[in-house]
Amino acid sequence: MNDRLQAIRNKMGGLNLQGMIIANPVNIRYLTKIEAEGILLITRKENIFITDGRYMEYVSSIITPFDDIVVDDQKNIGKDEYENFFLFCENVGFEERYLTYSKYKEYIRKFKINNFVEAEEILINLRMIKDDEEIADIKRACEITDECFNMLKEFIHPGLTEKQIARKIQDFYREHAEGEAFDTIVASGENSSKPHAVPTDRTIKPKDIITIDMGCKINGYCSDMTRTIFIGEPTEEQKNIYHFVLENQKKVIDEIRDGANIKSITKSVESDFNTRGETLIHALGHGVGLAIHEDPIIHLKNDSSLKENMVITNEPGIYIPGNFGVRIEDTILVTKKGAMTLTESNKECIII
Amino acid sequence: MNDRLQAIRNKMGGLNLQGMIIANPVNIRYLTKIEAEGILLITRKENIFITDGRYMEYVSSIITPFDDIVVDDQKNIGKDEYENFFLFCENVGFEERYLTYSKYKEYIRKFKINNFVEAEEILINLRMIKDDEEIADIKRACEITDECFNMLKEFIHPGLTEKQIARKIQDFYREHAEGEAFDTIVASGENSSKPHAVPTDRTIKPKDIITIDMGCKINGYCSDMTRTIFIGEPTEEQKNIYHFVLENQKKVIDEIRDGANIKSITKSVESDFNTRGETLIHALGHGVGLAIHEDPIIHLKNDSSLKENMVITNEPGIYIPGNFGVRIEDTILVTKKGAMTLTESNKECIII
Repeated sequence: MNDRLQAIRNKMGGLNLQGMIIANPVNIRYLTKIEAEGILLITRKENIFITDGRYMEYVSSIITPFDDIVVDDQKNIGKDEYENFFLFCENVGFEERYLTYSKYKEYIRKFKINNFVEAEEILINLRMIKDDEEIADIKRACEITDECFNMLKEFIHPGLTEKQIARKIQDFYREHAEGEAFDTIVASGENSSKPHAVPTDRTIKPKDIITIDMGCKINGYCSDMTRTIFIGEPTEEQKNIYHFVLENQKKVIDEIRDGANIKSITKSVESDFNTRGETLIHALGHGVGLAIHEDPIIHLKNDSSLKENMVITNEPGIYIPGNFGVRIEDTILVTKKGAMTLTESNKECIII
Repeated sequence: MNDRLQAIRNKMGGLNLQGMIIANPVNIRYLTKIEAEGILLITRKENIFITDGRYMEYVSSIITPFDDIVVDDQKNIGKDEYENFFLFCENVGFEERYLTYSKYKEYIRKFKINNFVEAEEILINLRMIKDDEEIADIKRACEITDECFNMLKEFIHPGLTEKQIARKIQDFYREHAEGEAFDTIVASGENSSKPHAVPTDRTIKPKDIITIDMGCKINGYCSDMTRTIFIGEPTEEQKNIYHFVLENQKKVIDEIRDGANIKSITKSVESDFNTRGETLIHALGHGVGLAIHEDPIIHLKNDSSLKENMVITNEPGIYIPGNFGVRIEDTILVTKKGAMTLTESNKECIII
């Protein structure tokens, strides 16, 4: 059995769970490398992946005896068999942040479950701490993102539309990685004041400010980086805000290390923002892995601590409605000694 | 208030619901045209969209007084206010197939809900029947899909990889529509035996069979079409299976009309398949709209009837593991008189 399935079983023991149903495809991929529709049952004796006819051939072709996973086609499983998977299991765990209310009820009935217990934290806690293989993939995705940004510095000029720039990024990521990790943001001029702007047909003009939020995937693992750049000399107001955001972003990097408290890191940025009359309108960051947004959320409400080998983003931003916005973001590996910034593109005020 | 919000309120009355929380972004878009993170509350007196600072500017810019929607930033809503939204509401509805178990519990607590009632069917039933505007969008998406297929017939030749063909489709859809409606499938040779194959670096060879499953979006509305084509003369076995699948696909088209029973349509195909020693390994079809897969599912287990202005797919397929597969699919509008096939690409055995 692979290490991750073994780790899940160990944690289940600690929570007095005798079984578990895993339905989130990202968690299934994390535990088994299988990318197909279906559910993974961790029963007393077996690991069982239940799928359907569309995926049987593919799944059987990728699992090895070492994986110790039984593959079943749902159409061959009868009512009794469903009821027997968790026979003599007092408690069976599930992913409460993934499973819909309707599936929750269906599984209790179908599998005749005694106590269906919220147990997603097991998976969240495992996935938060990255192993060497995962870190290598994220590093590679970050390198490709840096290469893409280098390409962009040459490519961007007045006359292009936001959509054309976004498309260039998508093409680069499709050629050098597994495509974009999320919908690329290219927000120019007044559009940059919307943190989640969608690329439009707006044409880049002289004196524009452009915020670009981009990332790609390698073996499913994501990178995430934002840079705000200028076409020609920025205004004094833009320069001031840019440097203020950058100072805060760097301050956070100085504070990131194994053991640092997430709430106090965020609080320190927020109080700087408030002193200046600004507000931090979104989270300061988030975990990155097989999902672009995962735990830990770097937010005032999170009173837990950073741990070695977490990978998180650090992305303070200021947005002036109808005018402009500035966000600067890196993907960062937490180490015992401090932050290791994985996206290394230049952050000093870039003027094109 | 717009017609769709009004329709929801009428249906809520029929189910004795005094309030409803709508969280699925697709349903929110359907009811309000808003595309942003947040939840929509239908309270006794108001329609309220609760979002956060990232989307306030965008949402305020797209809603009009006629929409009758109040927009709130979650950070300005206190504990008491949450508890007052559904004050004096006996029953509040929610989307049981969308809401996670964890949100289900959170909302009951946060909004102090008396009876939180499974009510997604209201939205499912509304969305299943398309209005003129929706049908026009789907028709346009289907036309562009036909144009894309015409382009492909000229473009495809031995030496190209599956990925290159998929990329050509994606590029076409990005140029002429809002991009692809789902991950395009290009499955050649033995890969075509996997109904959900992902495009690979496999090179198209003489005598290959290729299954292409593709669709795009217009104003969020999807098209969905599959064609199986041949590079050079197919084998006798391939020809036989192709014609058998095509006959069944055409037979279904003849049976589709307002009032036709979904179970019996599916049963008729299945019994033809079984007589030949084949099995129908996936659903015969599905509804298409703002989501690529929506109700009704065209499946043996669905004993309901087709209704005028539903839009569904019709996609029988046969898959011979390790050898090849054939699937033929159209997007179809259900009318009083019969089926109106919206994807009109040639289905006779296409040899390139």
